[in-house]
Amino acid sequence: MRLSRYFLPILKENPREAEIVSHRLMLRAGMIRQQGQGSFSWLPLGKRVLDKVCQIIREEQNRAGALEILMPTIQSADLWRESGRYNDYGKEMLRIKDRQDRDMLYGPTNEEMVTEIFRAYVKSYKDLPLNLYHIQWKFRDEVRPRFGVMRSREFLMKDAYSFDLDFEGAKAAYNRMFVSYLRTFTRMGLQAIPMRADTGPIGGDLSHEFIILAETGESQVFCDRAYLSLDVPGANTNFSDDAEIGGIVTKWTTPYAATDEMHDEAAWEKVAEGDRLSARGIEVGHIFHFGEKYSKPMNAKVAGPDGKDHYASGGSYGIGPSRLVAAIIEASHDENGIIWPEAVAPFDIGLINMKVGDGECDRVCDDLYAALTSAGKDVLYDDTDQRPGGKFATADLIGLPWQVIVGPRGVAAGEVEIKNRKSGERETLPIAEAKKRLGIAA
Amino acid sequence: MRLSRYFLPILKENPREAEIVSHRLMLRAGMIRQQGQGSFSWLPLGKRVLDKVCQIIREEQNRAGALEILMPTIQSADLWRESGRYNDYGKEMLRIKDRQDRDMLYGPTNEEMVTEIFRAYVKSYKDLPLNLYHIQWKFRDEVRPRFGVMRSREFLMKDAYSFDLDFEGAKAAYNRMFVSYLRTFTRMGLQAIPMRADTGPIGGDLSHEFIILAETGESQVFCDRAYLSLDVPGANTNFSDDAEIGGIVTKWTTPYAATDEMHDEAAWEKVAEGDRLSARGIEVGHIFHFGEKYSKPMNAKVAGPDGKDHYASGGSYGIGPSRLVAAIIEASHDENGIIWPEAVAPFDIGLINMKVGDGECDRVCDDLYAALTSAGKDVLYDDTDQRPGGKFATADLIGLPWQVIVGPRGVAAGEVEIKNRKSGERETLPIAEAKKRLGIAA
Repeated sequence: MRLSRYFLPILKENPREAEIVSHRLMLRAGMIRQQGQGSFSWLPLGKRVLDKVCQIIREEQNRAGALEILMPTIQSADLWRESGRYNDYGKEMLRIKDRQDRDMLYGPTNEEMVTEIFRAYVKSYKDLPLNLYHIQWKFRDEVRPRFGVMRSREFLMKDAYSFDLDFEGAKAAYNRMFVSYLRTFTRMGLQAIPMRADTGPIGGDLSHEFIILAETGESQVFCDRAYLSLDVPGANTNFSDDAEIGGIVTKWTTPYAATDEMHDEAAWEKVAEGDRLSARGIEVGHIFHFGEKYSKPMNAKVAGPDGKDHYASGGSYGIGPSRLVAAIIEASHDENGIIWPEAVAPFDIGLINMKVGDGECDRVCDDLYAALTSAGKDVLYDDTDQRPGGKFATADLIGLPWQVIVGPRGVAAGEVEIKNRKSGERETLPIAEAKKRLGIAA
Repeated sequence: MRLSRYFLPILKENPREAEIVSHRLMLRAGMIRQQGQGSFSWLPLGKRVLDKVCQIIREEQNRAGALEILMPTIQSADLWRESGRYNDYGKEMLRIKDRQDRDMLYGPTNEEMVTEIFRAYVKSYKDLPLNLYHIQWKFRDEVRPRFGVMRSREFLMKDAYSFDLDFEGAKAAYNRMFVSYLRTFTRMGLQAIPMRADTGPIGGDLSHEFIILAETGESQVFCDRAYLSLDVPGANTNFSDDAEIGGIVTKWTTPYAATDEMHDEAAWEKVAEGDRLSARGIEVGHIFHFGEKYSKPMNAKVAGPDGKDHYASGGSYGIGPSRLVAAIIEASHDENGIIWPEAVAPFDIGLINMKVGDGECDRVCDDLYAALTSAGKDVLYDDTDQRPGGKFATADLIGLPWQVIVGPRGVAAGEVEIKNRKSGERETLPIAEAKKRLGIAA
């Protein structure tokens, strides 16, 4: 993409309304625009990151056997009356009346609707296990939306729902999502730690929040340093092997890990002092087994091998892609701007032409742009007439993993400069060498 | 995907509520489920088609220079008060109050919001042309939603908005979208004809509906047969060459073409009788130049090269991906079910194991499944224990372009059967030959 044809409205000033660094940087980098309280448009740069985040989530959901559907954003109130949550949900639920004066609502979550789909079609244990997910906009009318997309009213959510015949099946489904989440966050360059979370009236231990450590995190968390060196399951993980998956979950739930809310001082004391890691964290995912909570009031039954009807045993599994984009920035930035992990960077490479109009600079840039693009790299080519200082500042602010800097002096010597955004390392290299360094044949 | 692990709730009976063939077939093929009046969930098979349709739209929008953003579904009423449309829009607009009693609405379209984004950042003609699009859910509270996803209340829409300094620029932007739409529909296997549409108080001739011909179409249309043989611009079309693009538009607007609404008997009489094509049509896209309709009341100005401020000249360009899925089915089906054009088929190939459990059938199927999948083909492998008759009926109903049928007798002879869904042609081929026929090395 040529920057001269792109829409990247960089802000030079720090927006006053932004209280946290991700919000500030997303506004400054032209990733989002606020459209109302807790409501944002994703501008082209932000949309690209959001897409990459969703794509990784999707691939890992599919790998774990979940199937993608897409439910509408507006739901009938009657469905929520069936589960008893219509009154319980309170003011966070955005309630609507249509022109026929029917009660509707903007879905804050989808347990009811997906249970309705399930009960309409699935009658036998033979069609289980089933896990349906979608990535769709949700609305929660928070009293105090803030921190940009981190706590917005309209937000994107991946929510998966598993259905099984009994607790054993539901636990296996839960474990698959657990392992899928480990892979998902790791692929985004995040170190996420599963922490035991409240199960409320459901009881048991099948509720985990996935927390990433970030100095600017919203809550205090406590965990064993052992988490920092645990192996994350690879792409060859066999999700149809319950024992293998269960083993990974055991390994990942054995060391101590708790949010402030669930913190247990007595257990904490038992962790060796040098292994105690007390840090700030951001919740990026939550998985939860709820058993018959929805299947019972909504009468979602399947015939078992015993010939009898059983209420399906369910769980729900959420990740907020829009909030994740902010969380990644909270975990990865410096005083100059964002530092994107490669897998979610909006572009792989920023190509900076220091002297647009100079025949040689233009020629080398055009050649590099064509070669990198045809090798499948996403390149943002700064071909604007801004001055070099401004271009460098923009490149650092938007934080692409690599910058390739092409100036008249270097070009005369057949060289360009390559900068790694994360390490700050710069190298001047012959052009052919630079191409190799960027992963393409010279 | 193995069918035994998929969620494909086929209906054997024709659903009574479905008045048109696409609605009936989408329900029967397990593509959608109705969740309320004019509100549908997209089940896995439907979601795959919707994704493919969106991907083609996206690629062609990008090719034409439009940039993707994503705006929220809920908008502030104040924005619509600025343009004067809040009162004008009537009851189709779903109006909402949040917990602070603020007036909001579920966006039926986005001219106001995108103009707000534009005016916030763009100040100079140097940043033009600009065309921003998004693919997002919309809501229109129709009195009588019907025909499944063809006329639903909550629907997906691709809406693009162009901004230019003057009419000449806006016309060039309009032409780029015109040509982009020709390519978009053709890639989906559709023959779409641009027909002059009403411009209302704006005037001029920059408004076209793109209509596909289908016996079951919603409205009567009239056009010159010449359209059926006009060349559709190729992938190498140069969208930055206004003259080239303008030439294509001229060619595609010269023969007679009109919807019932815009039909002109006098002009129609001038078309040679043998060239008159009077048929049923379905609207799948609409492009519209509206000039200063929004920029003026919303004060969206840019400085021109003359140093003066000018109201941006705008246009909007819509395609309904959810409705398109139904329109494709209306245009392409037979008495047995859907016939997907290859580019939007949910899977490329249906692989039918006629005798699951038979060692040789299983082995040949597993081998074909692995080979096709690793060659990048999307395969739906029917490994269920249903009887062959049911499997054939399902395969025809869901309409994948190719069926590969593996039975014990054929396998004993080292052969499989290949069926083309569209032509109905069947061929028995040696396995290696079959692989070649399906586009993979033997």
